[in-house]
Amino acid sequence: MYRDPVPSLEARGLLPAATRALRVGMIGIGTVGGGTFRVLARNQRHIAARAGRGIEIVAVAARDLARAARIVGAAVPVTADPFEVAAHPEVDVVVEAAGGTGPARDWVLAAIAHGKRVVTANKALLAVHGEEIFAAARARGVAVAYEGAVAVSIPIVKALREGLVANRVEWLAGIINGTSNFILSKMRDEGMGFADALREAQALGYAEADPAFDVQGIDAAHKLTLLAANAFGMPLRFADVQVEGIDGLEAADVRGAEQLGFRVKLLGVARRTPEGVELRVQPTLLPATHLLAQVNGSMNGVMVKGDAAGVTMYYGAGAGAEQTASAVIADLVDLARLEGVPPAQQVPHLGVHPHATEALPVLPRAAAPGVRWLRVPLVAGQRLDALQAALAGHGVSLQRVVWADHTPAAAPEALCLTGLLVQATLDDALRALATHPAVRGPVKALPVETLDA
Amino acid sequence: MYRDPVPSLEARGLLPAATRALRVGMIGIGTVGGGTFRVLARNQRHIAARAGRGIEIVAVAARDLARAARIVGAAVPVTADPFEVAAHPEVDVVVEAAGGTGPARDWVLAAIAHGKRVVTANKALLAVHGEEIFAAARARGVAVAYEGAVAVSIPIVKALREGLVANRVEWLAGIINGTSNFILSKMRDEGMGFADALREAQALGYAEADPAFDVQGIDAAHKLTLLAANAFGMPLRFADVQVEGIDGLEAADVRGAEQLGFRVKLLGVARRTPEGVELRVQPTLLPATHLLAQVNGSMNGVMVKGDAAGVTMYYGAGAGAEQTASAVIADLVDLARLEGVPPAQQVPHLGVHPHATEALPVLPRAAAPGVRWLRVPLVAGQRLDALQAALAGHGVSLQRVVWADHTPAAAPEALCLTGLLVQATLDDALRALATHPAVRGPVKALPVETLDA
Repeated sequence: MYRDPVPSLEARGLLPAATRALRVGMIGIGTVGGGTFRVLARNQRHIAARAGRGIEIVAVAARDLARAARIVGAAVPVTADPFEVAAHPEVDVVVEAAGGTGPARDWVLAAIAHGKRVVTANKALLAVHGEEIFAAARARGVAVAYEGAVAVSIPIVKALREGLVANRVEWLAGIINGTSNFILSKMRDEGMGFADALREAQALGYAEADPAFDVQGIDAAHKLTLLAANAFGMPLRFADVQVEGIDGLEAADVRGAEQLGFRVKLLGVARRTPEGVELRVQPTLLPATHLLAQVNGSMNGVMVKGDAAGVTMYYGAGAGAEQTASAVIADLVDLARLEGVPPAQQVPHLGVHPHATEALPVLPRAAAPGVRWLRVPLVAGQRLDALQAALAGHGVSLQRVVWADHTPAAAPEALCLTGLLVQATLDDALRALATHPAVRGPVKALPVETLDA
Repeated sequence: MYRDPVPSLEARGLLPAATRALRVGMIGIGTVGGGTFRVLARNQRHIAARAGRGIEIVAVAARDLARAARIVGAAVPVTADPFEVAAHPEVDVVVEAAGGTGPARDWVLAAIAHGKRVVTANKALLAVHGEEIFAAARARGVAVAYEGAVAVSIPIVKALREGLVANRVEWLAGIINGTSNFILSKMRDEGMGFADALREAQALGYAEADPAFDVQGIDAAHKLTLLAANAFGMPLRFADVQVEGIDGLEAADVRGAEQLGFRVKLLGVARRTPEGVELRVQPTLLPATHLLAQVNGSMNGVMVKGDAAGVTMYYGAGAGAEQTASAVIADLVDLARLEGVPPAQQVPHLGVHPHATEALPVLPRAAAPGVRWLRVPLVAGQRLDALQAALAGHGVSLQRVVWADHTPAAAPEALCLTGLLVQATLDDALRALATHPAVRGPVKALPVETLDA
């Protein structure tokens, strides 16, 4: 076929914006950026057939220019300066794939100031600076999309904001940190202690060299912050999430939970109560037969209870280059479809139009209601009913109390399930137990969730 | 507050279309229509806060006018003529909530001809008349939304078309008929036969008086047709789905599957193979520990394998008035946001823009590959290796063969797991077994799916 040597309409900017390719500038071309580049290249035709237009990476910022060039090839210009991408006149959408909070905030705000739409999978950035970023985006009339920030492969942000839009969400509960879930699965399946399981996770690449964010529950708290805002139409309240990681767990905790028919999962829970929103990340006991308790290894799962839909659950990988790319590209396609659509007709950043956001109070830790599992080291020769009486004296009733299996006779332990109580009552009782002559050492207490439909 | 008696801007049509309430005409006010009305009324403020505009039912068509008026109140005009709603000048979107195929097709086409957008949860209608309806909608430039047509409470259509847009889907497998799943759960948990479990499902309202569509697999095939089209970018091929219901299952099948470590589920499977798309609904064995095998009672679950996201799963109620309403209203909110958005920028009806749809061949039944589970009634005194030899003579190798537990010595049965084969090979072997002197009666064969990530 003869083709005229005149540049295409597209190249000359003569096609309407909505039909030419969406032009993407990428900041960072590591795991997430590289994965996005690869999936976009591999599934190019497929994605265009669905999006109705192409998606093209036209600029990349990276620290290691030579490495970046090896990934994206000679056709895509590479710069060391993220602000250059944020301001690039040919860029429609900036993908922030660099991670971190401080500099990433500045790049994203710069991109917004230049009228760029933004995609990011950076949960730390949004949990901490989200309100500022979304306000700037609203003021400039641009969208910021972040499906990859929570449980990467699972379109859970879209499910909450769009799929379940008719529902008043009553609660959601999620296994949203793959590293912790991998470690807990190892501890259960192989009877390992926390330190050994962590080392194995690191050796297999499921945990970073510095695992603090994951095993201390901070990463899960970032994600829970985003989920709760979208579920309840409340602001981002990261600082108010009650956070406890898996780093304090012992093999005896996992075993003692099993003995009573439970599994320990690092669970993010957001629940609407008459007094405020429960917002917490904690190692939590789930009934062993519960569907969420079947989410094993590094997988993620989020369960949502809506007043109309009832219980729905979403399951998938919580990390990985292409798994995150799946979400980043879904966001890019959404943005590609919004060309010329007035902001008032777009899905609001946190699901609810800002004037209707409710500043729901967050329930303080002391008021957190629920059932608790206790592991109580007792002095040899003590009886379970003495423990039961001591707890009852402080307002803690027990629905169950048994001796832990596999503890030496000289160092027995009791396993208990309390009745319904609030945290303050338990704290009070535990303070008393600490000096009780029958009690041999610190009591471990973990929340129990049954997540009934 | 003093209010001017002048009609509102909204009432006089002086507000831009995108900011006034979306006006809905509903055809049918039974389970789905009534549920939609109730949820819209209850969560009105909540939904408007998310959608950015109200959603208002302005006309209803129903067979029983008095009953309809009791549900929707005096403020909403009720007619016996669905075509009146389809043509109503004040209606933006028609919700078809009447069910059935013939008349529903005419009403939906009439609504489209009048330039109305349409929402329906009617899988039979779309599986059979979808291509015609979507073509008419495209020609008229209106959208037809149908999230409620598959696994009502689960936003699975949205997940496939939008959330997983970056992925080439390799396969999907779904428990997408709640009635069948309820019956199978009963059969397993209580050792019931099919007929007893069906009667119990009917008594509890989980099965209709005429359960044929559900237990014969037809309803699941309707849904699989829609899922496969969206997953693979292929046309609706309902007539080509290989369908087998649970009505031929015996208690011995469920028990015999359990004995080898499997559970029987009515599974819809769509899988891309080099030779064509596998498209089938059949009672299928899943490993008992598989996550999909934990989907019990009347719940639905759909698992999807994408090349980037990997395996994701979606779980929720597959029926119910408010569960369906959740999907219908999500569609209404999506449509409310599309005011003035050119069709080319909207999500295509079946996920892919029509010019890019691939007419993928559907794999014929004879070519269906996989492992099969067999239950073979043998003449007393026969040996398993005789059976193994007979099958091997027809090209069917066995990876496992054992005696079924709990069968009388006089009427023994063998349970087998075959190696990988195609259906034609098995059909050939089963024809030979039918006249084999060692075989006492008809052989039951069911597919086995491991759905590995």
